[in-house]
Amino acid sequence: MSKQKTNKLKILNDPIYGFISIPNSLIFDIIEHPYFQRLRRVTQMGLSNLVYPGANHTRFHHAIGCMHLMQKAVHVLRTKNVEISNKEANALYIAILLHDIGHGAFSHALEHSIVNGIAHEEISLKFMKKLNEKFKGKLTLAIKIFEGKYHRSFFNQLISSQLDIDRLDYLKRDSFFTGVAEGNISSDRLITMMNVKNDELVIEQKGIYSVEKFLIARRLMYWQVYLHKTCLSAETLLVKTLQRAKELAKKNVELSASTPLRYFLYNTINAENFTDETLDIFSTLDDYDVLSAIKEWVHHDDLVLAKLSSMIVNRKLLKIQLQDKPFTTKQLEKIDVSFKNELGIAKEDLHYFKFEDKVINQAYNSEKPIKILTKKGKLKDIAKASDQLNLQTLTKPVIKYYVCYPKKFLLN
Amino acid sequence: MSKQKTNKLKILNDPIYGFISIPNSLIFDIIEHPYFQRLRRVTQMGLSNLVYPGANHTRFHHAIGCMHLMQKAVHVLRTKNVEISNKEANALYIAILLHDIGHGAFSHALEHSIVNGIAHEEISLKFMKKLNEKFKGKLTLAIKIFEGKYHRSFFNQLISSQLDIDRLDYLKRDSFFTGVAEGNISSDRLITMMNVKNDELVIEQKGIYSVEKFLIARRLMYWQVYLHKTCLSAETLLVKTLQRAKELAKKNVELSASTPLRYFLYNTINAENFTDETLDIFSTLDDYDVLSAIKEWVHHDDLVLAKLSSMIVNRKLLKIQLQDKPFTTKQLEKIDVSFKNELGIAKEDLHYFKFEDKVINQAYNSEKPIKILTKKGKLKDIAKASDQLNLQTLTKPVIKYYVCYPKKFLLN
Amino acid sequence: MSKQKTNKLKILNDPIYGFISIPNSLIFDIIEHPYFQRLRRVTQMGLSNLVYPGANHTRFHHAIGCMHLMQKAVHVLRTKNVEISNKEANALYIAILLHDIGHGAFSHALEHSIVNGIAHEEISLKFMKKLNEKFKGKLTLAIKIFEGKYHRSFFNQLISSQLDIDRLDYLKRDSFFTGVAEGNISSDRLITMMNVKNDELVIEQKGIYSVEKFLIARRLMYWQVYLHKTCLSAETLLVKTLQRAKELAKKNVELSASTPLRYFLYNTINAENFTDETLDIFSTLDDYDVLSAIKEWVHHDDLVLAKLSSMIVNRKLLKIQLQDKPFTTKQLEKIDVSFKNELGIAKEDLHYFKFEDKVINQAYNSEKPIKILTKKGKLKDIAKASDQLNLQTLTKPVIKYYVCYPKKFLLN
Amino acid sequence: MSKQKTNKLKILNDPIYGFISIPNSLIFDIIEHPYFQRLRRVTQMGLSNLVYPGANHTRFHHAIGCMHLMQKAVHVLRTKNVEISNKEANALYIAILLHDIGHGAFSHALEHSIVNGIAHEEISLKFMKKLNEKFKGKLTLAIKIFEGKYHRSFFNQLISSQLDIDRLDYLKRDSFFTGVAEGNISSDRLITMMNVKNDELVIEQKGIYSVEKFLIARRLMYWQVYLHKTCLSAETLLVKTLQRAKELAKKNVELSASTPLRYFLYNTINAENFTDETLDIFSTLDDYDVLSAIKEWVHHDDLVLAKLSSMIVNRKLLKIQLQDKPFTTKQLEKIDVSFKNELGIAKEDLHYFKFEDKVINQAYNSEKPIKILTKKGKLKDIAKASDQLNLQTLTKPVIKYYVCYPKKFLLN
Repeated sequence: MSKQKTNKLKILNDPIYGFISIPNSLIFDIIEHPYFQRLRRVTQMGLSNLVYPGANHTRFHHAIGCMHLMQKAVHVLRTKNVEISNKEANALYIAILLHDIGHGAFSHALEHSIVNGIAHEEISLKFMKKLNEKFKGKLTLAIKIFEGKYHRSFFNQLISSQLDIDRLDYLKRDSFFTGVAEGNISSDRLITMMNVKNDELVIEQKGIYSVEKFLIARRLMYWQVYLHKTCLSAETLLVKTLQRAKELAKKNVELSASTPLRYFLYNTINAENFTDETLDIFSTLDDYDVLSAIKEWVHHDDLVLAKLSSMIVNRKLLKIQLQDKPFTTKQLEKIDVSFKNELGIAKEDLHYFKFEDKVINQAYNSEKPIKILTKKGKLKDIAKASDQLNLQTLTKPVIKYYVCYPKKFLLN
Repeated sequence: MSKQKTNKLKILNDPIYGFISIPNSLIFDIIEHPYFQRLRRVTQMGLSNLVYPGANHTRFHHAIGCMHLMQKAVHVLRTKNVEISNKEANALYIAILLHDIGHGAFSHALEHSIVNGIAHEEISLKFMKKLNEKFKGKLTLAIKIFEGKYHRSFFNQLISSQLDIDRLDYLKRDSFFTGVAEGNISSDRLITMMNVKNDELVIEQKGIYSVEKFLIARRLMYWQVYLHKTCLSAETLLVKTLQRAKELAKKNVELSASTPLRYFLYNTINAENFTDETLDIFSTLDDYDVLSAIKEWVHHDDLVLAKLSSMIVNRKLLKIQLQDKPFTTKQLEKIDVSFKNELGIAKEDLHYFKFEDKVINQAYNSEKPIKILTKKGKLKDIAKASDQLNLQTLTKPVIKYYVCYPKKFLLN
Repeated sequence: MSKQKTNKLKILNDPIYGFISIPNSLIFDIIEHPYFQRLRRVTQMGLSNLVYPGANHTRFHHAIGCMHLMQKAVHVLRTKNVEISNKEANALYIAILLHDIGHGAFSHALEHSIVNGIAHEEISLKFMKKLNEKFKGKLTLAIKIFEGKYHRSFFNQLISSQLDIDRLDYLKRDSFFTGVAEGNISSDRLITMMNVKNDELVIEQKGIYSVEKFLIARRLMYWQVYLHKTCLSAETLLVKTLQRAKELAKKNVELSASTPLRYFLYNTINAENFTDETLDIFSTLDDYDVLSAIKEWVHHDDLVLAKLSSMIVNRKLLKIQLQDKPFTTKQLEKIDVSFKNELGIAKEDLHYFKFEDKVINQAYNSEKPIKILTKKGKLKDIAKASDQLNLQTLTKPVIKYYVCYPKKFLLN
Repeated sequence: MSKQKTNKLKILNDPIYGFISIPNSLIFDIIEHPYFQRLRRVTQMGLSNLVYPGANHTRFHHAIGCMHLMQKAVHVLRTKNVEISNKEANALYIAILLHDIGHGAFSHALEHSIVNGIAHEEISLKFMKKLNEKFKGKLTLAIKIFEGKYHRSFFNQLISSQLDIDRLDYLKRDSFFTGVAEGNISSDRLITMMNVKNDELVIEQKGIYSVEKFLIARRLMYWQVYLHKTCLSAETLLVKTLQRAKELAKKNVELSASTPLRYFLYNTINAENFTDETLDIFSTLDDYDVLSAIKEWVHHDDLVLAKLSSMIVNRKLLKIQLQDKPFTTKQLEKIDVSFKNELGIAKEDLHYFKFEDKVINQAYNSEKPIKILTKKGKLKDIAKASDQLNLQTLTKPVIKYYVCYPKKFLLN
């Protein structure tokens, strides 16, 4: 009995942090649960590995990494005399561990195609509540913190804010596995600079340059990695493929698909009809269902679905152009895809291959500011505390417009 | 036209080496070929990510990394006045890029279950020959080198020997992504110490300690990672699952499976009947086919298949015991799995859940020795050149015996 | 004879870059020259190791590192069809190797105290010319490039500009050895993005985020490391100590000092009387002369010199306050150091212990802009090419005012 | 008052470990003491920076690093239910912090030349006792542990054994700063594997491969770095120079030297006459005294001293040959240094330039074995627990013989 317990105090290897220890057996059991194990089969960065071949890390690893950083944060805050009880600490670990458990296969692609009537945060909450039943109420405080209903507001800020533990791990992790060293941030230093003032999470003044650098690194990761031309093209292609599949499913066309994928293709799911049963099915849907279905669809009779699928599998992506302004009608007309049409793709389906859209990124949101604790004990918005760098300009959302279309030779 | 060409001179990010450049457009085109793109969907370390969650790197990345190291090796040897023509260098890049292209899904598991009538090296060769047709004979020299038929024998040694480029990359890469820092080797230093004497690949004397350390690091990786208890248990479970599926297929039991997986389940493939068509089907079989099938099998009527599958998906692995000597009958009898039997699993199927086997590793093979070039220009087997460390002992194969069996509570 | 030559093709270990190779025997001989060997005894960051204990790296290592990066830059530019002859490449290596050879002991401290009539760049040039004599004119082109007199202007920009090889090495190196990971820059990536247009050094458009990040990292290093409060206090104390020594020397007070230090203390050197003999003496003056003299001065009869020296040796630094505005008379009067006076330090010498000054840093100088090469082949100032981040604001020099004064208990 | 206290809870940057925190104000005060501050001016690896230019790290940094690892070790052991009181933990931190405080300038060179009547461990103990007086007995337990007089023997083993914290830091640190990546060890993993059984420090069974790798890495560091030919030549030259100076001092020849160096040159110090006053003088003697004296001696009238000194300063080292057997008379006679003689160096002084000696290294000492805790709770000597690698062979001391002599052209 006692032997079993000590067995549970496991240590995990992490190429980034070295060793990660699982703090107690409740958390060990949550990690062991099939709901959580599914995250092993969901990549953190979707199809970005088509551009950055090292980026195969999973949501499982990210969640575990967050839990590790949260342990550090709790330790740092306690040394600064911020009182955090063991119960509260444990709730923080659970909340951060589960904050993204509702993410679908390929992270974001599903939300924009076949599971789009409900946000992933809501699904996360559903998972937590279900686990809370299974673990007899031991997750109640974690859920309260996750929902922002706990009276000490810095608890929720550690889970969800502009400088939350989630970002501190994913920026570091994504930078590490993509090999884009410039996106690297010093999670360690930022955590060391954390403090709490008036129940708010703040950064001590000497950490100003670190926060600045964090914001710039994050911005760099957005434009150089997450919204990288080719990543964007791959991601969009995946969404279009699933949208086509959904369209066919609505017409009752038969599609190869695993049981859970079939469920979400042939049913229209939204926040209202997302039952416990739906959750259980969702909990078995991962990257493997989606990609293996797409591999089968390469041979489907529907030419549109077959083409789109084949482009993903063989990495023959759509061409993509980005610019700062919306594309003019003239620009769009220049892109002639009528050749597709000739090959048997109906005119009304050409929008699957040629389409325009935009991406937006805001490097800093001044509405929920990162607060700096000055040496005199006052709080300042980082955008104003920074002596020179005009962070105010970072609050302006940057919009980029893009158009995708096939290269002609793809059709051969 | 010229624009397209320069587009092909791509640079790839690698978290280990920084930037990897693709040396020319022929190699770019080989990488783009669907045969090679498949490697993006085959993990290098199979199910080891169940133990080392960072170990999701693919055979694609490994092959690209090898090509990078080979460029370094060619550069080093040339500075030491070893003549290597551009044509020869190119053939080396291609040979190392494709040396493992014949690996099946989950790397080694398929070889021990459903594609077991032919070695992966033979399949690699088949792929190369097929690509050689497509690229109009431009791979001829690469194939010659790969087969060991080129007259300058160090060419083949760079591809396949105890200190080949393959090992220099995979040890470094596996150590990096698992986070087992102790397995890290200095590929850079070892390559810097390479030289050629009498057409043989040798290491200069001052590199002796580096070679020793390489052998010890490799040995450590074997016992701590590749043959890690839990990795072994997971790997074996996968093999057993596929063997059961094959057994059912032979009895014409219906099994969910993608087209290529179905082909290898319901047909018995061996070296003789491995046709061009088989190769094309093989070239579409990857980790996604296997794991998504297993996910479906969780609900199969065959209790054995369903149990085995569910154990993989939910990471409820078999218990495993290792020891230096074969298990005695007495030891084996102590492990009572009759409870399985009670649950509906036939007695004759219990061997899927309780079985014994052994693993062997030889840290150094003195039959094809690593040769040291002494300062006086002589060649010595590293096992004899080392002044103190008794490397001779490393030639003795280490055998470990293991037995796997289910924990009782797994059945609940 | 030939053996000796190959011996010269040395490889050096660098914890940052791995291996650095010395490209030819001329450069090997320059490195071996006592003028260059002196740099082994001059730390890159002066007394910053009192704050960052890892920062003991020398100007020698920095210069060698620069030479290594220059080899990479030449390689990258050549692959982009920028013609660089072997002679030109070699001149670049020599110029960057020697660009800082004129730095005095403790890098900057001497320039502000006892060798202040001549800039270190002028001394670097003197060294180069002297070496050119010794090496029979083989440094002529390097000197031309260093002086900015070579007709291809990007050569000088590689040596001295806002994105020169010097900065790419020292920021990376200082960040590495201090352990301030956030200052780390991707020298590799920046060099990969270099190109030449109209004989000017430019950065390709896709490198925009990297340049931004470089500027922010540099700014961070300035305020967090180079102008760190305690580093500043230590550096200033060193300058004051040497100024006091110089003042005493002028009054012919006897001071322990090595031969070269004595020369610069008891003579007033400026650009006019800096002869070849002066250069030879300067070439033997390093950190060891300065710090060992200060250690002796701890016991000097002059109370001011003794106190200042002891504060350095035992790391009992002056207190320092920084603010954005000049200190008011009222603020300064509050700092009462009259207790020093009572202890035997004359009123007119109190300025050695209490003094104010300012530091300035400009993160980006738009007068000699970093130019971005757009995809359409045009050149743009990075400050304007950046889509959002208002780099223009970085051009405004930031001034910080500080006042130093002793803590009372120091006197016990 | 309370403000001052929190100021003392300092954090230091370490390029290896990230942040190191000083656990309490007593330790902060010990670090601040001039005795300890001296270690900032003593390099860990002596003149090895002449070969590895990054190796300028100090004994100060090493001691701080040890303290950091000790904090980790205490944490790990406590999680394994080894009881360590706060008082005991604190004593461990102090003992490891001060274990090497008795090292002289350039670490080992002084011990073999001018401070050779007393071992550095004895001087360490003297320092500790003196500090204990100053800190009113707060170091008593630390001293007891250091001396091996504390009843729980694993306390001393953490300070001094074949797998002590000292080695775990210095191997990692020396490997890091030299850039010899292969010497890198996983201190973290080794500490994680520590346990205590029967009051002895042991390593858990699964750590076997890590210990093996540690022993091999240490051996590699010895032969590739610490006993590297050129490092050995430099080190020996330093010893010879100091021995010559001592010889001249005994004859009352006047030598430039700082006050503390003068004391040790002109007096013969041994364990008997090493008084408190001697300790105070010793506490002001560091690398700067020695190297600045040598720089002056370049111009000394004594030709032997001048030559030796100049060879160090300008890095014109003696040639060195190593071999496995003692040099025969015939071999030695072949090395003709009579040319030195002609240049004015007396025949009886030629031994300063041509001399033979030997170095010994034992990779593993089986008399005080590293003990492995088997899964069954038994203790085994690692040399016997290792399944294959014949660690027994590592117990045989390896002896290398060397002869040093000048290159002829050095004299020009």
